[in-house]
Amino acid sequence: MSPVTIYDTTLRDGTQGTGISYSTLDKIRVAEKLDEFGVHYIEGGWPGSNPKDAAFFEEASKRSWKTAKITAFGMTRRGKMKVEDDPQVKMLLDAKTPAVTVVGKTWALHVTEVFQVSLEENLAMISDTVAYLKKHGREVLYDAEHFFDSFKENPEYSLKTIKAAQDAGADLIVLCETNGGALPEFVEETTRKVIAHLGRPVGIHTHNDGGVGVANALAAVRAGACQVQGTINGYGERVGNCNLTTIMPNLQIKMGIDLGLDLTRLRELANFVDELANVPHDIRAPYVGVAAFTHKGGLHVHAVQKLARTYEHVDPALVGNQRVITISDMSGQSNVMMKAEGMGFKFAKGDARVQTILSEVKRLESEGYEFEAAEASFEMLIRKQLGQHKPVFDLIEYHSTHRFHGGEHGFETCEATIKLEVDGSRVYTVDEGDGPVNALDNALRKALLPFFPALKDMRLADYKVRIIDGGTGTAAKTRVLITSTDGNATWGTVGVSCNIIDASWKALVDGIEYFLLKRAA
Amino acid sequence: MSPVTIYDTTLRDGTQGTGISYSTLDKIRVAEKLDEFGVHYIEGGWPGSNPKDAAFFEEASKRSWKTAKITAFGMTRRGKMKVEDDPQVKMLLDAKTPAVTVVGKTWALHVTEVFQVSLEENLAMISDTVAYLKKHGREVLYDAEHFFDSFKENPEYSLKTIKAAQDAGADLIVLCETNGGALPEFVEETTRKVIAHLGRPVGIHTHNDGGVGVANALAAVRAGACQVQGTINGYGERVGNCNLTTIMPNLQIKMGIDLGLDLTRLRELANFVDELANVPHDIRAPYVGVAAFTHKGGLHVHAVQKLARTYEHVDPALVGNQRVITISDMSGQSNVMMKAEGMGFKFAKGDARVQTILSEVKRLESEGYEFEAAEASFEMLIRKQLGQHKPVFDLIEYHSTHRFHGGEHGFETCEATIKLEVDGSRVYTVDEGDGPVNALDNALRKALLPFFPALKDMRLADYKVRIIDGGTGTAAKTRVLITSTDGNATWGTVGVSCNIIDASWKALVDGIEYFLLKRAA
Repeated sequence: MSPVTIYDTTLRDGTQGTGISYSTLDKIRVAEKLDEFGVHYIEGGWPGSNPKDAAFFEEASKRSWKTAKITAFGMTRRGKMKVEDDPQVKMLLDAKTPAVTVVGKTWALHVTEVFQVSLEENLAMISDTVAYLKKHGREVLYDAEHFFDSFKENPEYSLKTIKAAQDAGADLIVLCETNGGALPEFVEETTRKVIAHLGRPVGIHTHNDGGVGVANALAAVRAGACQVQGTINGYGERVGNCNLTTIMPNLQIKMGIDLGLDLTRLRELANFVDELANVPHDIRAPYVGVAAFTHKGGLHVHAVQKLARTYEHVDPALVGNQRVITISDMSGQSNVMMKAEGMGFKFAKGDARVQTILSEVKRLESEGYEFEAAEASFEMLIRKQLGQHKPVFDLIEYHSTHRFHGGEHGFETCEATIKLEVDGSRVYTVDEGDGPVNALDNALRKALLPFFPALKDMRLADYKVRIIDGGTGTAAKTRVLITSTDGNATWGTVGVSCNIIDASWKALVDGIEYFLLKRAA
Repeated sequence: MSPVTIYDTTLRDGTQGTGISYSTLDKIRVAEKLDEFGVHYIEGGWPGSNPKDAAFFEEASKRSWKTAKITAFGMTRRGKMKVEDDPQVKMLLDAKTPAVTVVGKTWALHVTEVFQVSLEENLAMISDTVAYLKKHGREVLYDAEHFFDSFKENPEYSLKTIKAAQDAGADLIVLCETNGGALPEFVEETTRKVIAHLGRPVGIHTHNDGGVGVANALAAVRAGACQVQGTINGYGERVGNCNLTTIMPNLQIKMGIDLGLDLTRLRELANFVDELANVPHDIRAPYVGVAAFTHKGGLHVHAVQKLARTYEHVDPALVGNQRVITISDMSGQSNVMMKAEGMGFKFAKGDARVQTILSEVKRLESEGYEFEAAEASFEMLIRKQLGQHKPVFDLIEYHSTHRFHGGEHGFETCEATIKLEVDGSRVYTVDEGDGPVNALDNALRKALLPFFPALKDMRLADYKVRIIDGGTGTAAKTRVLITSTDGNATWGTVGVSCNIIDASWKALVDGIEYFLLKRAA
């Protein structure tokens, strides 16, 4: 076993995050992914707090796990009650997991004001619960809630609570920085004192309220902590938990602590969790975000290619990510070539077509195009320049109307008409929509579906509008960025025009043509 | 002056972030907001790298600044050239700022491989440039690029470069953790050694690639650093810069270092920058995110109400944020009141109208409105609730048409018709435009000008569109933010609708009514 273990609580503490929830099947899938990846503990939920978590443990107990110990989370017994009579503790055993984590109160203020039991009774609650679970053969982790805030105020009582857990047989004491507001120096100092007091290492559980959740856990590891608790992508209550996606590579790559993890699958894991939580990927996430190894600008790119480590803190391949050279203004030939080759195009050295493509990119950029997030439009552009593009239809005309009528019989309506030719047939359609672009999108799909039934699998996933030169008011240029998906792949397209409808039209058509091209391939 | 100064580079390094860009007017507005907030230095751009940045300094030099020194960024002179002949250095002086920051190479590897000059020549480049700028009366900050990576490999040469800057008269040496991959312990240790070597404190500039950008800057401050450089919301290249929005409260509230900042306006500042960058707010941002003080679940909420500090690392009011229980409602009474009183409205304690206004704000926010950058719409809203609003006209109907016709006799046209009543007269106008909104804007002005000749002084300065719920494709809700100006004042208005035309209409009308109200006053 590694000198530091990774304890994942994505499925318990992570679900406290705003907008995060999983079905039971989602939870099983995340747990399987975490197990493959190699984490040591997977906290699946709090069986005593909700039935969905209990269902997870039921499912989990039927499966076999490679590296991870499935762990159930619960609380110390209630005050003035025998531990064996507490239904919440019973459900913890019913989860049938090899390991359990029990959270207990550390902060005297909290014990007496919120819990309303005596300080002595709190110690008994900790001790009884740990001993009872040990007697039933569980590996027991004791989670000392509010440890750091409590220690600052009353170190003596704080230490008594964790000593009670240790004396009752707890396998590991975990110091919990519940409010997320401590700074690294204090965490390091305190962890060092506690380890000296207990005579053995502890685990660390941090939150990110002060923006230093990862740094606090690293500080504890420096002080001798042997377990880091956190969540994938840092999801969790308020601003979130210690981000495992960040700290795992910090520990394994930078500090040389072998966690036994396959970090080349880190980005895949991060995106997988996002997908199941239905949360957009954070492009700026350390190590795994799309922007984490993104380089802008010609001169700089030249330097990166020359000496990668002068601009990259780690090799992106180590965490399953990759260098991205953005197709942005001032894009030199090397940028465009790297991107085109990444799409499978091959050019001989000195191929004149490279210059043609580059000129077209520059012309479009000067009009306000950006291809950073619109790879599909970029690929269509290359195909057009190479004479490899066959339009799906010929546009004859489209128009859209928006009407608002106030007063007693007021109404608002938006419709679009499309006239086009596909394979020699004229097709006219009309449809309504929530706005002019939505109406146009609806009418265009109506026109094309009979010819391309695969289009039913494709939908728009995101639609962004940017005014490029705001300084000229409502006559400003508009850039529309559309992300489309077929449920598996996603692709971005872009359109620019003085007119938002025209800009949207261009991006819509690129997205459809790209999809049909890939389907036919 | 505070023992630690805040150096904001939102407008220079921050614009290197994927998807971040500002117009010149945006940059001026951000700078004004930062100045009001109280930061000590505002780095406005790199005048030698692009004309937009030069335009910012031109504008900035015409204004007066309360607390901040406007700072221009540039590079040491090129190799084998006299400093006075380097056009990039000349443009740095042309920016006419009280302070300039010059970046130079520290890493020997970088000097010889990428820059292709000798190590000696690099020292001369640093020394010449700093001395030249000092001679022209500038406060000079010397930014030592790649300092930490370089120091690890070759401490001796690294120290020589900053010593060269110091000996040439630099007012402050700033250690730059360019690649963002260092860990706090190393940053602290290195900063301590450098300060001892130079015999005076340094500044610190960090990036967040290892997820510890804030912690690294804090570590440097512990070691004696006297300036922290970063960006609002942490925007910047790759995963971003040290997040000032996080570190400022860490320093001022937690570490007791008085930065002289009005932190109760922190959240407003963070949101303002997002709005102008047209980037969605990060709900999980420490201190300022909507979720930062959000509490889920009954028991927990009860405990929070009972004893706030057992679940909150700081009082949310200190950073202009607030506790959110369950469903988010961002605008608390105190926020709304503060804002209204700032506009000159007065309410007695317990005034029932405050509750009416608050309800309306909440209703609009739940529809997707945001008033952070739309003070004029907020003021109109209050007036409407107080019965102090008299509409300028009554709308009967408007409609707009967009038509694209391809082929030999192709054309594209966009027109709008407006029917309204002003002072008992019916007015019908029609006009064309570059897009449906521009056509509507033109037709509306045409209708109103005969009644309100002052309108000729007003124009739209900026127009931004944000799709609020991108996940539903082209049928998503649209928020339109319009900035108007009469050449002196600027004011923001907002409109929300499923339909971009309708959303724009609302913001247009608010902008015009606000202008006419202020002119009449």
